[in-house]
Amino acid sequence: MGDKGYRLVSREFQEAYRDGRTRVVRVGEVEIGEGRPVIVAGPCAVESREQTLEIAEAVKEAGADMLRGGAFKPRTSPYSFQGLGEKGLEILAEARELTGLPVVSEVLDPRLVGLVGQYVDMLQIGSRSMQNFPLLVEVGRYGKPVLLKRGMAATLREWLCAAEYIAKEGNLDIVLCERGVRTSVSGLYDRFTLDLDVIAPLKKETFLPILVDPSHSTGRAEMVPYAARAGIGAGAHGLLIEVIGENADPDTVFSDGKQGIRPSVLRELIREIR
Amino acid sequence: MGDKGYRLVSREFQEAYRDGRTRVVRVGEVEIGEGRPVIVAGPCAVESREQTLEIAEAVKEAGADMLRGGAFKPRTSPYSFQGLGEKGLEILAEARELTGLPVVSEVLDPRLVGLVGQYVDMLQIGSRSMQNFPLLVEVGRYGKPVLLKRGMAATLREWLCAAEYIAKEGNLDIVLCERGVRTSVSGLYDRFTLDLDVIAPLKKETFLPILVDPSHSTGRAEMVPYAARAGIGAGAHGLLIEVIGENADPDTVFSDGKQGIRPSVLRELIREIR
Amino acid sequence: MGDKGYRLVSREFQEAYRDGRTRVVRVGEVEIGEGRPVIVAGPCAVESREQTLEIAEAVKEAGADMLRGGAFKPRTSPYSFQGLGEKGLEILAEARELTGLPVVSEVLDPRLVGLVGQYVDMLQIGSRSMQNFPLLVEVGRYGKPVLLKRGMAATLREWLCAAEYIAKEGNLDIVLCERGVRTSVSGLYDRFTLDLDVIAPLKKETFLPILVDPSHSTGRAEMVPYAARAGIGAGAHGLLIEVIGENADPDTVFSDGKQGIRPSVLRELIREIR
Amino acid sequence: MGDKGYRLVSREFQEAYRDGRTRVVRVGEVEIGEGRPVIVAGPCAVESREQTLEIAEAVKEAGADMLRGGAFKPRTSPYSFQGLGEKGLEILAEARELTGLPVVSEVLDPRLVGLVGQYVDMLQIGSRSMQNFPLLVEVGRYGKPVLLKRGMAATLREWLCAAEYIAKEGNLDIVLCERGVRTSVSGLYDRFTLDLDVIAPLKKETFLPILVDPSHSTGRAEMVPYAARAGIGAGAHGLLIEVIGENADPDTVFSDGKQGIRPSVLRELIREIR
Repeated sequence: MGDKGYRLVSREFQEAYRDGRTRVVRVGEVEIGEGRPVIVAGPCAVESREQTLEIAEAVKEAGADMLRGGAFKPRTSPYSFQGLGEKGLEILAEARELTGLPVVSEVLDPRLVGLVGQYVDMLQIGSRSMQNFPLLVEVGRYGKPVLLKRGMAATLREWLCAAEYIAKEGNLDIVLCERGVRTSVSGLYDRFTLDLDVIAPLKKETFLPILVDPSHSTGRAEMVPYAARAGIGAGAHGLLIEVIGENADPDTVFSDGKQGIRPSVLRELIREIR
Repeated sequence: MGDKGYRLVSREFQEAYRDGRTRVVRVGEVEIGEGRPVIVAGPCAVESREQTLEIAEAVKEAGADMLRGGAFKPRTSPYSFQGLGEKGLEILAEARELTGLPVVSEVLDPRLVGLVGQYVDMLQIGSRSMQNFPLLVEVGRYGKPVLLKRGMAATLREWLCAAEYIAKEGNLDIVLCERGVRTSVSGLYDRFTLDLDVIAPLKKETFLPILVDPSHSTGRAEMVPYAARAGIGAGAHGLLIEVIGENADPDTVFSDGKQGIRPSVLRELIREIR
Repeated sequence: MGDKGYRLVSREFQEAYRDGRTRVVRVGEVEIGEGRPVIVAGPCAVESREQTLEIAEAVKEAGADMLRGGAFKPRTSPYSFQGLGEKGLEILAEARELTGLPVVSEVLDPRLVGLVGQYVDMLQIGSRSMQNFPLLVEVGRYGKPVLLKRGMAATLREWLCAAEYIAKEGNLDIVLCERGVRTSVSGLYDRFTLDLDVIAPLKKETFLPILVDPSHSTGRAEMVPYAARAGIGAGAHGLLIEVIGENADPDTVFSDGKQGIRPSVLRELIREIR
Repeated sequence: MGDKGYRLVSREFQEAYRDGRTRVVRVGEVEIGEGRPVIVAGPCAVESREQTLEIAEAVKEAGADMLRGGAFKPRTSPYSFQGLGEKGLEILAEARELTGLPVVSEVLDPRLVGLVGQYVDMLQIGSRSMQNFPLLVEVGRYGKPVLLKRGMAATLREWLCAAEYIAKEGNLDIVLCERGVRTSVSGLYDRFTLDLDVIAPLKKETFLPILVDPSHSTGRAEMVPYAARAGIGAGAHGLLIEVIGENADPDTVFSDGKQGIRPSVLRELIREIR
């Protein structure tokens, strides 16, 4: 390990993965890392029971494997919608009942890992929390699978070191998610530059599966299918995609409405990819 | 306010500061924001009682106004020295007794704001925590002055929105600190590119005082005096500087030894600046 | 046009392309922009007759549509191999005779447009020359098809404005080529961050076909197939790929040996893509 | 030299400069690199005889040492004002007669080095031309002092390698100019992020004098004095500043009007700096 700062998440250290295999992370009955790409889809934020259940059913029908949805939202401004909190988690749990899709949702606060954990199948660490070390430790201890998004200026090494904080607590069920980095050309036609170059080196260095988030990177629904296909082309094990209601008005969606694709677009995209 | 996402920290909203004045943030008897530049200096990490007291006395003699030192360290790797924790805080408190210098130290975990707060005069939010919203809320509620470092890819707006999370809890005693951003040319001769362009627009937008950290940005002791003078030239209200023992070996310092300047260099720098 | 600074290369201005069609740029009998992706492959630099003819035949056999090769090389250092100049062009012309593949090669100097132009089928403007305005004008006047690579920190607008310099001289046979931008995370596992986000917005804004260069962006042969597939996934009309001899030693190749793939790898890649 | 790619411009190679001295580059009677900071000021573009002579006299009175002004302008769009060409050079020569200030102006085209060179005292290579190698060679051969601006994403090594192209032709009278790099945070409150971190390492590596351009980096007149003071604080040997007429309307200036400061502001700035 030495200079790298991580060990448990490296192929070099884990004999079982030296042959190039990817670790299969199981979330409910979904297997991430092997076989066909896994599609995790759902609303940016849980806004209401109605909106969430509608989208959950629609993504299920479109062929998605898992449901995503934010109950605790990390918002740049304290005046923006901060999520429904526990109420949102209850709605997500209901959506799981309804659809059978395992659920992933973000946790922001080390004090709330237990609360969020009891409702969801997979805990998400967002970009802004990638180096929230106390949170990584708590999530590592909790034991449920973790979706670890890359920080918006994080190097590959910093990202794997963050994963190591989780692994060091005994939890190797970590899925990485590339979601774009801030660059000198981002913010003009996208929100962040999706860094697909990172996938091949990541696969060489670690056995953890890797998703690509074409929604937060591009920030524009019309670009999402392109970025999704590019991500799969680059070797990702799956996608994390935001979806809005088939007839929803992007401008009235509580957060990031402009980047959500319609279920009909998702269905077409999943067909192409598989 | 509208689109900006912040209000309480803006000149536009606060009538008292529309005339261009800077808010004076008092930490003990030190006033940040008015008159001569404030120098906050000390070790990167509190490593031992002896090391900390020696440096504390040395920076006091060199003319520093406040003492900095890390007890809880946000380290990229879980295998790096994580700080002495509460023991480190006790040492910092002793250093304050000895020198009379008010103390600032970083808090990483919302559960530890009370613990850190009882030992220090000012709570530091590090770069990696700039968008740790639960932590910002706790620090805002605690009430002691806050040193809010800029995230390594944060925009001016995101930075002021982070300050707003603190202000919204009733605490306007916030000092901003520029410490370099990650760019396409950083990492070659420095660690981060010190963004001094941000200072003039910040001063126009907010009344909060602004420090510059020439240590973390450059990452090299020999560059620190240049960056420090540049920071003052750019209009900063003070500097946050890391110092190592006059005879310490940079290679044996627990963290960031290469960027710490000697007390003798600090003394000369302070003389030049004032 | 107004604020954009370009007009002739925009869909908005050219009625014939408002329906979303891509302009087909013909280079010899190769059509770029329609139907199956076009593969342009060959050595980074023309080093010798033997090396070039061997690679030319190999890429032809592997299924490539066009041959690339540098005779005038833009090298960071004046002490690096600068290319064989006119001798290199003669070799490229011979390779075209041998294989029937049309040839593209870079021109650096406005005084040499005529010289390079008489040997090649398509003139390449490299990244470092994207805003070499006198060169763009000469190339525009010369009239042969132009491959315009993106500058390493260029915005979409700057890129299209550069294309407009060519178009304004009466030449619309321009093919754009994304080759990576320099970012805060480039240089660690790649040379430049391949910005595939740019392709969808480019296609919306302009009717010019777009290639992706997976070689200069990644800088490592093992990453090239991933980046190539990602580029096609993102919607590129073709690829520009560097190839080294099947048995060449990357360390003895004159320039950029580490990023050249073998003809056998190229063949496999072309099979996957088509 | 080896890996660096430059030699003649390095302290290591030039015995005379190993002691840390800066080479003094003489332009007319102005000495750049020693003693007090040199101020080069003038209009962005030469627009007319009247405008240029007025500004030339005003900057002379304000205490500037040299006059700058663009006759051949590198403009992003072909539809923007491209400069007055030779007519502009004649006006600059007249301004020199009138004020006695040596003149620097940009050359874009290797075919025009002789033309520009006969009118000016110093040839400027702009950011977009930093890696225009044929131009660097011509300028190196011409023999007059050269002002070499940094490319907007150039590393220190690339910059010095560009200088080496000039030096290799026998011309060591090169002055470097930092003018900002494009980063993930540039373009929000400035145009480019002024990278003052580069100055100390440059001074260690090379003996060539270094100017800072606070005008193109910030892009806003009100920020120029801050950036100028920061540049001097960081150790620059002088400044390159754009000036508009005392009563000119920034919106009617042909190029970059918003970043030009008034002569009265320049005078005050020069007084502060000296």
